Amino acid sequence: MDNSPSAKAVDVGEAPPETKNYNNTYKENNNNREEGEAVLSVERLFEGKEVPKWKDQLTIRAFVVSLFLGVLFSFIVMKLNLTTGIIPSLNVSAGLLGFFFVKTWTKFIEKSGLLRQPFTRQENTVIQTCIVAASGIAFSGGFGNYLLGMSDRVANQIIEDRNAENIKNPSLGWMIGFLFIVSFIGLFSVVPLRKIMIIDYKLTYPSGTATAHLINSFHTPEGAKLAKKQVRALGKFFSFSFLWGFFQWFFTAGDDCGFRNFPTFGIKALQNTFFFDFSATYVGVGMICPHIINVSVLLGAIISWGLMWPLIEAKKGDWYSADLEPKSLHGLQGYKVFIAIAMILGDGAYNFLMVLGRTIFSLIHQHRKDDAARLSFANDSSVSFDDQTRIKLFLKDQIPIWLAALGYIALATISTVTVPHIFSPLKWYHVLVLYIFAPILAFCNAYGAGLTDWSLVTNYGKLAIFTIGAWAGANHGGVLAGLAASGVMMNIVSTASDLMQDFKTGYLTLASPRSMFISQVMGTAMGCVISPCVFWIFFKAFKNVGVIGSEYPAPNALVFRNMAILGVEGLSHLPKNCLKLCAGFFAAAILINALRDLSGKKVARFIPLPMAMAIPFYIGSYFAIDMFIGTVILFVWERLDLVNARAFSPAVASGMICGDGIWTLPASILALAGVHPPICMKFLSRSTNDRVDKFLGG
Amino acid sequence: MDNSPSAKAVDVGEAPPETKNYNNTYKENNNNREEGEAVLSVERLFEGKEVPKWKDQLTIRAFVVSLFLGVLFSFIVMKLNLTTGIIPSLNVSAGLLGFFFVKTWTKFIEKSGLLRQPFTRQENTVIQTCIVAASGIAFSGGFGNYLLGMSDRVANQIIEDRNAENIKNPSLGWMIGFLFIVSFIGLFSVVPLRKIMIIDYKLTYPSGTATAHLINSFHTPEGAKLAKKQVRALGKFFSFSFLWGFFQWFFTAGDDCGFRNFPTFGIKALQNTFFFDFSATYVGVGMICPHIINVSVLLGAIISWGLMWPLIEAKKGDWYSADLEPKSLHGLQGYKVFIAIAMILGDGAYNFLMVLGRTIFSLIHQHRKDDAARLSFANDSSVSFDDQTRIKLFLKDQIPIWLAALGYIALATISTVTVPHIFSPLKWYHVLVLYIFAPILAFCNAYGAGLTDWSLVTNYGKLAIFTIGAWAGANHGGVLAGLAASGVMMNIVSTASDLMQDFKTGYLTLASPRSMFISQVMGTAMGCVISPCVFWIFFKAFKNVGVIGSEYPAPNALVFRNMAILGVEGLSHLPKNCLKLCAGFFAAAILINALRDLSGKKVARFIPLPMAMAIPFYIGSYFAIDMFIGTVILFVWERLDLVNARAFSPAVASGMICGDGIWTLPASILALAGVHPPICMKFLSRSTNDRVDKFLGG
Repeated sequence: MDNSPSAKAVDVGEAPPETKNYNNTYKENNNNREEGEAVLSVERLFEGKEVPKWKDQLTIRAFVVSLFLGVLFSFIVMKLNLTTGIIPSLNVSAGLLGFFFVKTWTKFIEKSGLLRQPFTRQENTVIQTCIVAASGIAFSGGFGNYLLGMSDRVANQIIEDRNAENIKNPSLGWMIGFLFIVSFIGLFSVVPLRKIMIIDYKLTYPSGTATAHLINSFHTPEGAKLAKKQVRALGKFFSFSFLWGFFQWFFTAGDDCGFRNFPTFGIKALQNTFFFDFSATYVGVGMICPHIINVSVLLGAIISWGLMWPLIEAKKGDWYSADLEPKSLHGLQGYKVFIAIAMILGDGAYNFLMVLGRTIFSLIHQHRKDDAARLSFANDSSVSFDDQTRIKLFLKDQIPIWLAALGYIALATISTVTVPHIFSPLKWYHVLVLYIFAPILAFCNAYGAGLTDWSLVTNYGKLAIFTIGAWAGANHGGVLAGLAASGVMMNIVSTASDLMQDFKTGYLTLASPRSMFISQVMGTAMGCVISPCVFWIFFKAFKNVGVIGSEYPAPNALVFRNMAILGVEGLSHLPKNCLKLCAGFFAAAILINALRDLSGKKVARFIPLPMAMAIPFYIGSYFAIDMFIGTVILFVWERLDLVNARAFSPAVASGMICGDGIWTLPASILALAGVHPPICMKFLSRSTNDRVDKFLGG
Repeated sequence: MDNSPSAKAVDVGEAPPETKNYNNTYKENNNNREEGEAVLSVERLFEGKEVPKWKDQLTIRAFVVSLFLGVLFSFIVMKLNLTTGIIPSLNVSAGLLGFFFVKTWTKFIEKSGLLRQPFTRQENTVIQTCIVAASGIAFSGGFGNYLLGMSDRVANQIIEDRNAENIKNPSLGWMIGFLFIVSFIGLFSVVPLRKIMIIDYKLTYPSGTATAHLINSFHTPEGAKLAKKQVRALGKFFSFSFLWGFFQWFFTAGDDCGFRNFPTFGIKALQNTFFFDFSATYVGVGMICPHIINVSVLLGAIISWGLMWPLIEAKKGDWYSADLEPKSLHGLQGYKVFIAIAMILGDGAYNFLMVLGRTIFSLIHQHRKDDAARLSFANDSSVSFDDQTRIKLFLKDQIPIWLAALGYIALATISTVTVPHIFSPLKWYHVLVLYIFAPILAFCNAYGAGLTDWSLVTNYGKLAIFTIGAWAGANHGGVLAGLAASGVMMNIVSTASDLMQDFKTGYLTLASPRSMFISQVMGTAMGCVISPCVFWIFFKAFKNVGVIGSEYPAPNALVFRNMAILGVEGLSHLPKNCLKLCAGFFAAAILINALRDLSGKKVARFIPLPMAMAIPFYIGSYFAIDMFIGTVILFVWERLDLVNARAFSPAVASGMICGDGIWTLPASILALAGVHPPICMKFLSRSTNDRVDKFLGG
């Protein structure tokens, strides 16, 4: 499950070959060849070190650290979920911190002479897997999209389908139950295929590979030294970012107060959402995401908030009624949401078809070549020392196929029976159909991710929304059924591809598949409890979660609900010309993607990503400016000192993201306790200020 | 005049031995020995280079550059004058920029093949002298103290002596005239003594010596390289500081708007003037001033605004009437101003007597030792190559004594006749008496500065205020007479010691005394025109100049006027217990100073300076926090990287001061043109904010 946050970043458009989880003691190799052959043998470095038995890889300390970091990363992922939905890869910080904590722990115990077992890279892989599995649920649990989309907070922003049948408000009980039912099935669906994908097909899994390199490098002496420095950089920026969040808090006594509303470029620009909101998080996100993503987001912001929305607003009274409430989907808001959805769907459809095509093509290709081909593949690698060692260990601890099949069938049965009790519009036959098709889609996604690093989780979710929603029908709570179906689907597909990424990491770090599987199960179980609790804190502390324009707009929740409505109601309720615009942007998204694929690598890296461009369409431009600042900082840093920028920018960025993310924990506790900030930093135009001064004076 | 800004910093308490104008290619030697003997011969480095004739040292390009930088520094000094009155030494930046501009200029001309004369260190000394003479008038012109103290803006803040006889509002005409009349006399008063002070007595003049080292170092190849880097650092921070000032401007639509009112530590602390006002200037000032000054200022702020004022305010209605206007000197404001004055006078009196004592002691000592002593002094230095070269050149171009005497008498006569026409309460016999005693005091100050680097300009000014003010009497415009007399006195005393510092610089850089003198005259003439004009811009653009609590409180103006009133009216109008407190602080100031002198160097450097402590008493604590941040930055920088901190901190700090200072030029032009900032960044308490939100909503 190592790459789950990365998988989400991918979902918003991370360019697959630009995986950034590097650590400069190692050079990774993102091509479709095995990296072991690159220059020197990795396993030779570790030759003297014994690989512990699979049971010994699963230590108590590993799970204690995982639990702690799982909570930490759940908070961060949740915050990102609920603000913009853009989640960068947090693998580096998870790896770093996991390594750091256990290393400190073992050093401490070693001094007291009680150390029974040294810290191995296998154990490190177990921790990494467990943390990311736990925090992954914070994403695939749908707290930022389908699950929140069911709530009345989101429903009340849309006129259609506000009826009780289509609303299910979050509550701790059913959320934890639902997650436990649906989150484990994915694991069983692809377990039997691991040998085929990892050893036979030799799929790359760039994120998994990068994580493995990171962990391997930590356990070399130089790597450990560098890791220590990186942890220090992370810690410094963590504290800075945390304190900055704390400082900002004091000035947010009212809704429009504080740095979050700083009119950096003037009040006019602020009204069009162009301002720098001093968020350390998204500056950090900008430093982790590839430059082209950041530029795409900014470009999307300029096209939408800089050009289109002001132009469409000028048509008020003509294209749409002037008397609507500001957030009505029949007005400007409708254009914002549906054009964004069109672009996301266009991008998603293109990539889905492309990845599916490549998967099928590659499968046919593989089978045609048969064993002979497999041998020729092996010519330059199977014989290598690294691969010999890895294959031997990977095949040592088997997970029986009958166990996987039994597990899947058992869980699917339980799920089919219980899920309809949670969501009444979703019938048992809907769920059954989902579970029949799910393994195929899970395989597609795992295979696609192995080839390209793209995990198209939300796309499979959208597929479920449209099909099941339409099947249930408008009069039978189709909206809620669609959202619930997408939840079931996303959980399976997401955990399946994550597990396979982990197997790749385990393969490269000689961790046992069995310990990886158990670690994933443990992590998932933790996540099923942690994530709903974390979400619950946010939901209770900040009354505006899910409301567009607030501090936690969770924009994907609105988009998911709108898609469900679209699936159920059809296209009839869109405002004037909106459908035409949507069609245009849908086509444009496909066209841009095709251009990226057809043009050479040199040109392609300057072509923006439609998925990334679509995000600011409904959220606003401010985070685009944050991210752009992050990208500029990284760009300058890389120009000044490439080596250090490469080595430390992920740590610095992670520190900024984590510090700000963790500040939300005390912030939400303060909010729950009813402690309000004392000061309002307000921004008024000169004329308003004169009026206020008179009011306060008189 | 090189050290005139430094002299002012001294005046607020700069510890003499901690002169900071270093440039790390050279090590200076602040003891009472000649620095040439230190380790190696400086003049050997320059042996091949010809020293130009005195006329050739005065080039047109030198005066063009001086004029430009004179305007620049006048702006900066004026801003500092009008905000807190704390003016750090700007010699380093003047030296750096002078060098940089002429070097660029000559390089440019050299390429075109038209260069007639290479850039020498003598020419550099001429520029430095001219710039600092010009910008020195911005201080000794009294725009931040006596001259502004005459205006009705300041007078209206005090109940006593508001009558027209005691008020003279600034106007460009009489200010320029007055400065031309009084500013040149100082030059003639000490010219004949230069040989005695520089060659015979071998006085140190730490600031002049440091400046000479700086200039010498620039003209070595390594020095030039370092200077280039320093200029780059200065330029970077100049731009940053300028842009930051520009950015801040947009948010200052109202009086209580913008970063200048940022409640960094909460609204309660803001009301007690404890906040960080984001001023790049005073962070820079903090980086230039010695740590002990910054700590003293902060300590003073805590004692006064943190403890005493809240305690005295609690006595409202008991110690002073509760019905007074907030700025009345019969209320809290009286305690603030008079306790500060008492402390400044205590410190001033102690230092005046100490320096006078040392001067007299040293003079007696010198004469007793006579020529024999002088020879023994010369034993280890007169014979050195450096000194031989320097003495030869210093004595080459003489300025006849008859010329100096004639100049002094002529100027004194003109002044005696004309000054009473400008200030009617000041009679011709007052001026005549001033001119009889002035040369003695000028000598005292020049000699004292040579020994200790302390230039006690404002102390001599205060002496004039009390004596002439009392002589003129309350009923004959004594307040105005006292202020005008202090102006006459300060100009003489200040230029005299500055000139002698310059002669020292010239001596060490082989610049001709004649060219130094002419450069000083030219610089003074420039200053007499530039400074009033710059002041005029501030005075017209910012209607609150001189008003305590505004952006430009010019606190010394109020203090000077109050001292004049005190001199005329006696101590009768002080509020209850104020006199007792004043006496206590007067004694404390003397005691602390005595402690500093009596304790060993190790302890003394931890004892605060009363003069520095007194400044926040009436201004507020915010700039103390700025300066403390500057000192912390420098402290950390020095700990991390001493060599670079030493080499670059003066340049960085100067850049911050200059950028912010220069921003006031466009800011005042905008204000004059009636362009107002568009946004108000306001800070409201939560309850006020709720009211405002209701007001704006309804």
